[in-house]
Amino acid sequence: MPHIPIPEHLPGIRGLLAYRPDTGMPLSQLADALLVGDSPLSRGERETIAAFVSGRNDCAFCMDSHAAAARHLLGDEHATVDAVLADVDTAPVSAKMKALLAIAAKVQRGGRIVTDYDVAAARAVGATDRDIHDTVLIAAAFSMYNRYVDGLATLRADPAAYVEMGKRLAEFGYAQRS
Amino acid sequence: MPHIPIPEHLPGIRGLLAYRPDTGMPLSQLADALLVGDSPLSRGERETIAAFVSGRNDCAFCMDSHAAAARHLLGDEHATVDAVLADVDTAPVSAKMKALLAIAAKVQRGGRIVTDYDVAAARAVGATDRDIHDTVLIAAAFSMYNRYVDGLATLRADPAAYVEMGKRLAEFGYAQRS
Repeated sequence: MPHIPIPEHLPGIRGLLAYRPDTGMPLSQLADALLVGDSPLSRGERETIAAFVSGRNDCAFCMDSHAAAARHLLGDEHATVDAVLADVDTAPVSAKMKALLAIAAKVQRGGRIVTDYDVAAARAVGATDRDIHDTVLIAAAFSMYNRYVDGLATLRADPAAYVEMGKRLAEFGYAQRS
Repeated sequence: MPHIPIPEHLPGIRGLLAYRPDTGMPLSQLADALLVGDSPLSRGERETIAAFVSGRNDCAFCMDSHAAAARHLLGDEHATVDAVLADVDTAPVSAKMKALLAIAAKVQRGGRIVTDYDVAAARAVGATDRDIHDTVLIAAAFSMYNRYVDGLATLRADPAAYVEMGKRLAEFGYAQRS
């Protein structure tokens, strides 16, 4: 049971965005700028970072929905996001992506533990300022979305619904378009 | 030294909002909706929750700037925010505010540890759905802002600058008005 009355047909963050629209709007716009807007990281890579951080925060709704979006964007057959969620060390992603995921994992625990060394290690395998910036902000933002979704005990979606959700997020993005 | 090149004259989150304006805009609008917009919690109470969560995340820039805003809004002579930052159990705040700060402290650690009991305890001393919602979202949002500010190792402001910053935030809010 959610801690506050939110529409039952809207699981996870969807009911919260509807519950308070004046915060729902910038929350949606932030997700859209981060995950759909301009970035040197591909949309599949960004959804993978979002799912990875959500997994580490134990936020099932966010992990499942963003993993579904990543699968849709990257092509199901590679199962890249699933490999990242299972074991980032052995996952078939670039050295740059591994270094960025290591930074995201630190941000998930706390901003102050990201070191100059972590950032230098990412730069050594090709990460740019914007790669580093966008990774930190995606990891920070999902540290918020995950806490919002679970701190109010919102409902998970039906397992089958995530595939459709991932497709919709991949195709239409996050912004509330009127 | 910040991990990426951000304008030196803009400490903390200010340089980050300028670094990437398309994420800076919704980040500013979210802060404005949460801390200035409509809420059953007073603006001073909301800035106190923001400073309290930032303190628990060890984010000096955010704690100092939002504590300064709280002092400006609540009246310096009470030093309420300082008492909350020093020891929430003995701070001169209402039973409702104490119960909400206990929820905020849990959200800071992770959304899933907020229990039905925590929420029932807050309701028993007068907290409404919106009090609970707004507290969870403020605590979640500062779990993001704090990680963004420290994950990129932004600079702190000069100690004297926070008083002026708190006054400006209290008087003009957070939205980037054109």
